[in-house]
Amino acid sequence: MANTVDKYFDLVDQNQQKFIETLREVVEIPSVSSDASKRGEVVRMGEWLQARWEQLGAQCKRIDPGKQILEGEELDLPPVILGQYGNDANKKTVLVYGHYDVQPALLEDGWATDPFTLVEMDDGRLVGRGSTDDKGPILGWLLCAETHKQAGLDFPVNLKFCFEGMEESGSEGLDAIIVDQADKWFKGTDVVCISDNYWLGKNKPCLTHGLRGVSYFHLQVEGPGADLHSGVFGGTVHEPMVDLVHLLSKLVDTNGRIQIPGIYDQVMPVTDEEELTYENLEFSHTALATDLKHDVIIHAEERDTLKHRWRYPTLSIHGVEGAFYSPGDKTVIPAKVKGKFSLRTVPNMEPKRVAELVTAFLEKEFAKLGSKNRMRVIETHGGRWWYSSPNHPNFVAGARATELVYGVKPDLTREGGSIPVTLTFEENLNVNVLLLPMGAADDGAHSINEKIDRRNYIQGIKLLGAYLHEVAVTDMTA
Amino acid sequence: MANTVDKYFDLVDQNQQKFIETLREVVEIPSVSSDASKRGEVVRMGEWLQARWEQLGAQCKRIDPGKQILEGEELDLPPVILGQYGNDANKKTVLVYGHYDVQPALLEDGWATDPFTLVEMDDGRLVGRGSTDDKGPILGWLLCAETHKQAGLDFPVNLKFCFEGMEESGSEGLDAIIVDQADKWFKGTDVVCISDNYWLGKNKPCLTHGLRGVSYFHLQVEGPGADLHSGVFGGTVHEPMVDLVHLLSKLVDTNGRIQIPGIYDQVMPVTDEEELTYENLEFSHTALATDLKHDVIIHAEERDTLKHRWRYPTLSIHGVEGAFYSPGDKTVIPAKVKGKFSLRTVPNMEPKRVAELVTAFLEKEFAKLGSKNRMRVIETHGGRWWYSSPNHPNFVAGARATELVYGVKPDLTREGGSIPVTLTFEENLNVNVLLLPMGAADDGAHSINEKIDRRNYIQGIKLLGAYLHEVAVTDMTA
Ligand SMILES: [Zn+2]
Ligand SMILES: [Zn+2]
Ligand SMILES: [Zn+2]
Ligand SMILES: [Zn+2]
Repeated sequence: MANTVDKYFDLVDQNQQKFIETLREVVEIPSVSSDASKRGEVVRMGEWLQARWEQLGAQCKRIDPGKQILEGEELDLPPVILGQYGNDANKKTVLVYGHYDVQPALLEDGWATDPFTLVEMDDGRLVGRGSTDDKGPILGWLLCAETHKQAGLDFPVNLKFCFEGMEESGSEGLDAIIVDQADKWFKGTDVVCISDNYWLGKNKPCLTHGLRGVSYFHLQVEGPGADLHSGVFGGTVHEPMVDLVHLLSKLVDTNGRIQIPGIYDQVMPVTDEEELTYENLEFSHTALATDLKHDVIIHAEERDTLKHRWRYPTLSIHGVEGAFYSPGDKTVIPAKVKGKFSLRTVPNMEPKRVAELVTAFLEKEFAKLGSKNRMRVIETHGGRWWYSSPNHPNFVAGARATELVYGVKPDLTREGGSIPVTLTFEENLNVNVLLLPMGAADDGAHSINEKIDRRNYIQGIKLLGAYLHEVAVTDMTA
Repeated sequence: MANTVDKYFDLVDQNQQKFIETLREVVEIPSVSSDASKRGEVVRMGEWLQARWEQLGAQCKRIDPGKQILEGEELDLPPVILGQYGNDANKKTVLVYGHYDVQPALLEDGWATDPFTLVEMDDGRLVGRGSTDDKGPILGWLLCAETHKQAGLDFPVNLKFCFEGMEESGSEGLDAIIVDQADKWFKGTDVVCISDNYWLGKNKPCLTHGLRGVSYFHLQVEGPGADLHSGVFGGTVHEPMVDLVHLLSKLVDTNGRIQIPGIYDQVMPVTDEEELTYENLEFSHTALATDLKHDVIIHAEERDTLKHRWRYPTLSIHGVEGAFYSPGDKTVIPAKVKGKFSLRTVPNMEPKRVAELVTAFLEKEFAKLGSKNRMRVIETHGGRWWYSSPNHPNFVAGARATELVYGVKPDLTREGGSIPVTLTFEENLNVNVLLLPMGAADDGAHSINEKIDRRNYIQGIKLLGAYLHEVAVTDMTA
């Protein structure tokens, strides 16, 4: 294997400029899934991918998930492109996922250059919308396969792929396809790999093995039948906003400690083994405070910040619907308000239990107020966390590949947010999922001047290939 | 006097239909001051008034207060029409104020009939935008003078008037004119009368002798330099929204009791004399609860509701700027939020002292939280309350006129809101101001289907005339 991988690495280095040109070609397709006027471009991007894989000999299946209503218009959802490259019973089968749609971007948002033209900067940044999220990574798999074929190198695994065009818009239609195809197109998958997240820092690669879940709540307080004037009614009726701020203030303290009884009971304790994974991570409060502009960091130790990002539940208050929200002054008493808050959940919390605890607590606190208003807790979303052991052979393969390319052991990270497709694959295919990021923490995936560093792009193409070679020689049943 | 007043009453009764036609004529001028496209109509309405008064022999002075920017357009502010009708050194001089602009109104807001066409209903309602606020009352003064002249009745006073076209849009430009004209056009004014508020109930007339002030605050909490994603930052940074709800929850309890130390210290105690004014008022919780749709009334006794509307300070929370406010779910941590709240103030509270107490209290509470965020209390408005003794001869004249027209002693009311021009006149002209409403509590001044009852309109025209006659024979220096 070493020989093949070395040859592959050499070829990637030789083809750097060509690979950047391919990235340029796809960045120029403004496949913005949230913009109805760009739907044709999203479809074009999906078709570009399918054509290129078919040219290579992959067998593809285009699934059109149906219709959506966007900006009052009925639109076809962009296709999910399923593919199979190689079908050798003696090889393992790796399923990779990625998305070919991108976030919106306008020059006037503050981009230094046209967002849909790839610009290579002197410092090595390849700037353009989608460069890191997620066009760079999906090209990585394609260019890896093309390079192997062109050089006559044996491709180490059977590759299945699933590329969607709606990730930035809630992956509408995707889950049903995964459920439906679990025993069909996805049958025989040994492991899954997703390259759609980022390193913890700017220089050290990582493997990601956990994501938090999220339970979202609307806390509704209703009073009179219509908004009232505070001059006339202030001090004479129970005001929904007053009750709401009292209730919201009971949920969490300024240090992020959740005040709802029972919430911490289901949280997995930190083991010694886990504690070790926080050593030597590329993460510093100094850098974080700089990014935040103001040091509003709660915890004194870096590892505590990471624990509260990755492995402890947290509660955030997002806003209030139904109250006055514009600049200026308005003397309204809002009749019906909804406080919006969410909990990030971690192993082994159950969303159902979380909703029960939240509701019971708020009902008890509301009763204490003695208000004549009506209160209701509505759980609008309850998505589970995802956690995988970093000792699984799939991760071992990812770690070895990283060492081969970057010469360092990767950080073992988790993420505070959620990537729901991870759990959908794990639960429906019953196989391990590895998150293997290509980009760095400062890529600005959803911001202006999104970039991928030339290093991350080129080494990333190597990394994905090296990973497939490692999977080929690793016992996945261990 | 009795003879003249009786003749006047008879003439008003005979001219009822003509007076309704005049109301119809002015309702048809859509003088919406908040709508840039209707500015010409506002001006037309002002010119209509001026022309009609000049035809009667009044001397008028049109003052154009300058420019405003509305909906991105530079517009001339509508004129303030000053007038003088009669100039007899042996008569008292009464200054009346009113506004000829109206609230916006669209049929699709839910009006049963076209808002700018006066429709007389079988139950006596005269429905149309501006019918009660404030076109009916300003016509009252005009029709009173016209009727006297046509019948050759001696007009009992010198009348000065001040009619503006921006009341529904913050009276932009008016205060400066009052200050400037205090010793000029308004010189020699003995008393002021304003007919631009409403009865407490639907059947019993009232005189209004108090208004609350309002102090408006923005409670700003700032954290990181930009909004954050709660998945990544939840539980690791001090969240401005969390601090904000904690602080807002300290201000007031669900029963409207203000928790800021010192706020109640400056409140004038209830005297026995005042207590008596709460007897026999036309006000019931049953009716109030019906209007509110849900019984969210705090107090058990009607008089306590009125005291908290009129003569105790209250605190309302209006909303939050900078946080998530739309329907649906968004997992943002807002970086900078402003809680909006206001206090209604009463004799003898000083706005400056109120702002000091509010600020000191919030700073102390914020310090207790131990947050790294930055907090600031901004007082955006501090308008004083207005209070006049109901024993002043101007009120005695108003009460006698009411008894003459309606056969009952008027309720003595105060209002929870503010009518800032009242205080401006009192402070700059150093004379007593009487609020003498024409319309009833259910007129729906700023709502759909605004109306004035035929009774209130016709009896109101009598009332304003009778009031002028009473002023003429009352010793105002008593
Ligand atoms: Zn992505
Ligand atoms: Zn993304
Ligand atoms: Zn008005
Ligand atoms: Zn009004």
